[in-house]
Amino acid sequence: EAMVRIIVESDILPEGSLQLVMGSTGDLLDHVTCQDVISFTGSAGTAAKLKAASAIVKNSTRFIAEQDSLNGCVLGPDAGPGTPEFDLFIKEVVSEISVKAGQKCTSIRRAMVPVQYIDATAKALAERLGNITIGNPRHMDVQMGALAGTGQRRDVLEKLEILSAENPIIIGDVDDYTLIDGDGSGAFLPPVVMRCDDPLNKVAVHEVEAFGPVSTLMAYDGTDEAVQLLQKGGGSLVASIFSHDRNFAHDLVLGAASFHGRMLIADRDSGAESTGHGSPMPHLVHGGPGRAGGGEEMGGTRGVMHYMQRTAIQGSPAAIANITGEWLPGAPEMKGEVHPFRRTYHQLEIGETLYTKSRKVTIEEIELFAHATGDTFYAHMDAAAAKANPFFEDRVAHGYLLLSWAAGLFVEPAPGPVLANTGLNNLAFMTPVYSGDEISVRLTVKRKKRRTEDYGEVGWDVEITKRPLRTAHHGRI
Amino acid sequence: EAMVRIIVESDILPEGSLQLVMGSTGDLLDHVTCQDVISFTGSAGTAAKLKAASAIVKNSTRFIAEQDSLNGCVLGPDAGPGTPEFDLFIKEVVSEISVKAGQKCTSIRRAMVPVQYIDATAKALAERLGNITIGNPRHMDVQMGALAGTGQRRDVLEKLEILSAENPIIIGDVDDYTLIDGDGSGAFLPPVVMRCDDPLNKVAVHEVEAFGPVSTLMAYDGTDEAVQLLQKGGGSLVASIFSHDRNFAHDLVLGAASFHGRMLIADRDSGAESTGHGSPMPHLVHGGPGRAGGGEEMGGTRGVMHYMQRTAIQGSPAAIANITGEWLPGAPEMKGEVHPFRRTYHQLEIGETLYTKSRKVTIEEIELFAHATGDTFYAHMDAAAAKANPFFEDRVAHGYLLLSWAAGLFVEPAPGPVLANTGLNNLAFMTPVYSGDEISVRLTVKRKKRRTEDYGEVGWDVEITKRPLRTAHHGRI
Repeated sequence: EAMVRIIVESDILPEGSLQLVMGSTGDLLDHVTCQDVISFTGSAGTAAKLKAASAIVKNSTRFIAEQDSLNGCVLGPDAGPGTPEFDLFIKEVVSEISVKAGQKCTSIRRAMVPVQYIDATAKALAERLGNITIGNPRHMDVQMGALAGTGQRRDVLEKLEILSAENPIIIGDVDDYTLIDGDGSGAFLPPVVMRCDDPLNKVAVHEVEAFGPVSTLMAYDGTDEAVQLLQKGGGSLVASIFSHDRNFAHDLVLGAASFHGRMLIADRDSGAESTGHGSPMPHLVHGGPGRAGGGEEMGGTRGVMHYMQRTAIQGSPAAIANITGEWLPGAPEMKGEVHPFRRTYHQLEIGETLYTKSRKVTIEEIELFAHATGDTFYAHMDAAAAKANPFFEDRVAHGYLLLSWAAGLFVEPAPGPVLANTGLNNLAFMTPVYSGDEISVRLTVKRKKRRTEDYGEVGWDVEITKRPLRTAHHGRI
Repeated sequence: EAMVRIIVESDILPEGSLQLVMGSTGDLLDHVTCQDVISFTGSAGTAAKLKAASAIVKNSTRFIAEQDSLNGCVLGPDAGPGTPEFDLFIKEVVSEISVKAGQKCTSIRRAMVPVQYIDATAKALAERLGNITIGNPRHMDVQMGALAGTGQRRDVLEKLEILSAENPIIIGDVDDYTLIDGDGSGAFLPPVVMRCDDPLNKVAVHEVEAFGPVSTLMAYDGTDEAVQLLQKGGGSLVASIFSHDRNFAHDLVLGAASFHGRMLIADRDSGAESTGHGSPMPHLVHGGPGRAGGGEEMGGTRGVMHYMQRTAIQGSPAAIANITGEWLPGAPEMKGEVHPFRRTYHQLEIGETLYTKSRKVTIEEIELFAHATGDTFYAHMDAAAAKANPFFEDRVAHGYLLLSWAAGLFVEPAPGPVLANTGLNNLAFMTPVYSGDEISVRLTVKRKKRRTEDYGEVGWDVEITKRPLRTAHHGRI
């Protein structure tokens, strides 16, 4: 509430655009329209009710759901005890079970290990989890606090009953654990891990989620089986692979990516920098298919698009340029009274165009450029070799010679408002230019992007043509 | 059925991937999973039922709906009788009412005209629609056939009753029209147009669709009112604007685009080439928000993405390169035994890298390049002027000089497998290079794209660095 208050008071958002309601929203969801987006994080049950709610369905209100899911992690066959990947795996599973007492959408619920490592893994997990101290989180020595409430604790115990009927508990005893500065009336639970040696033939472990410090260790045999197990989650937010075997990671990603919103490959190379299994990064999409809700959010600046309508605009180039504020081929060109390089950022208009005089390519100039730059590629130097090339009929001018000449043709050299050329995009060499051809250049203001009050970046559309023939080179500088 | 048979027999698709069911699909929709996509075209009522269907909701099955909508078209204030835009407008409304007897998702249901033109528009529509011949479409003289069936005809008449209770019919009489080679037992209807002089205060005209040759002509007064009327459709597949006034088109698009999947600006410039209001183009997205269903399909190659899962992949550069088959900075570099330009397309490996020797920049070389190309921009030629530029400390080397030198440094000039440089992308000049600096180049195989059995396109990642300082230029050639 304090954070939202600070955002609102900062005035960085239009008034009323951010509102926080704590508690019931009343009949808010009966009044949504096609201009609203509902982004929901919570249980699958609530999401299902909302998805089918009358106003949402009637008005096709966009609905982004991020639900709990039975996220998996997979230890690679190469990553046995003693490897850095084994240690990363143990550390991550312990962390995902104990952080927030396992009450995270991204928590690892299904830890998959090669059958030959399951005993060693169980032992390592038991040691690490046994050291987790539980109790009042205000106490300095406590590592894991209580669940959200006693209702949540009851729900976890109910789910645990279903899960442990299928697979035995090997770590943790919900009736016997030590508390620091807490008692049995609190919503505490110890870390609990079950063991499943035959996961392809089990059901609940892939479908029932206990939203607490609860996970199941399962054995797999071979890559195909690991892929099948990941898929059996029916759609998850995230899966992680602990392996330094590139081909194993490759096969698991290709086999299971369509069931996941995110896949993480953790190994000795990325381990130190990685944010880990449970932390989606703002520039990555977050959300997953199926059981995870089918929603998608974040993904860097693309995240904003989830809240906008994509509309196709048809019309003449002039009409489209006027709407987008960006020049495109076919849109009107304007001739300024002075050279565009003499005009300031604010004076330059979209569509302002300069046509240069022409310059004739000679074999001497091609040779001079070749020797000055060192680019004596055969197509520029040797007529017979050039003619043997399927693209050329003769010695061809260097593309970068033409590009450099273009800059020489359109430049206005004296000091003025233009500061620097920052780069170039989408340069395509469309047709060869030979000695005897004359080239000239069109330079058009395509877009403007303000940087400060006084200056900004101007995008130019540049086209080099050769006479009397067709377009030679086309690119934006 | 014949078309699908031909596609299946052509073997261009994997076996079983295309199946056609004509009639009931039984309990198919009870068995969809998170790996399915349902793309539905039909009524809002059926779409709503499907959206809330249990397996679809439970498994977050992707559901693309393209429903009927109350698409609008707007005649501009500049486009009165006698203008090309008025003629285009009349032609389009007549066409949208009569083609397929108006049974099209994209049909114009709400034709909006400036209040001062409504009489002239009604007259022009009456003339043109009065000439539409109705009857057996096998007959040479018939322009408009029957509706899909007598049930559909009944439905249109019911909706027409609701609509005409609000706004009077001014064109067409459903009880009196001429048929060619047909009789009253067929599902025929004449074109029907209603008139609405006060559309902001009417309800049914913006909410009830008669899926037949039925439309309503409505008056508006000013741009804001036209925007409001378009929005009142509650989300449409398409709206079209008939105007040669760029600012009017601009304001309508910005005001109403978030309620539409597509907006078309028709005028004298685009009229001859345009596919018109009713024809979505394959490279444009199709679908609309709200009443139009909230779905999105097509959009060129992006259309395929609607049937795929977007998954964020995290890992070391080496792991990611191995999955995507594309080199990225940080991924392993390999040194080949020979120069990469001596290796064929098939021999080149992703990550194969060449480091060149270095070359020292001198003031003489900068001047030579400036005079040879004509690019005598002050920052290259005049130390005092360059120093006055906020980006430079001294006369700076041309970016294209460095680019040309880079090609000279990494080239292997003798004839060999390399045919041509086709272009360049994402060239960014990161830091100035001055006389005395030494530059060298890294050339790495980033990606390969096969064109034929024998050859293909190789994408190179090229980085120019200056010594002993930081990265100078970075780009892909």
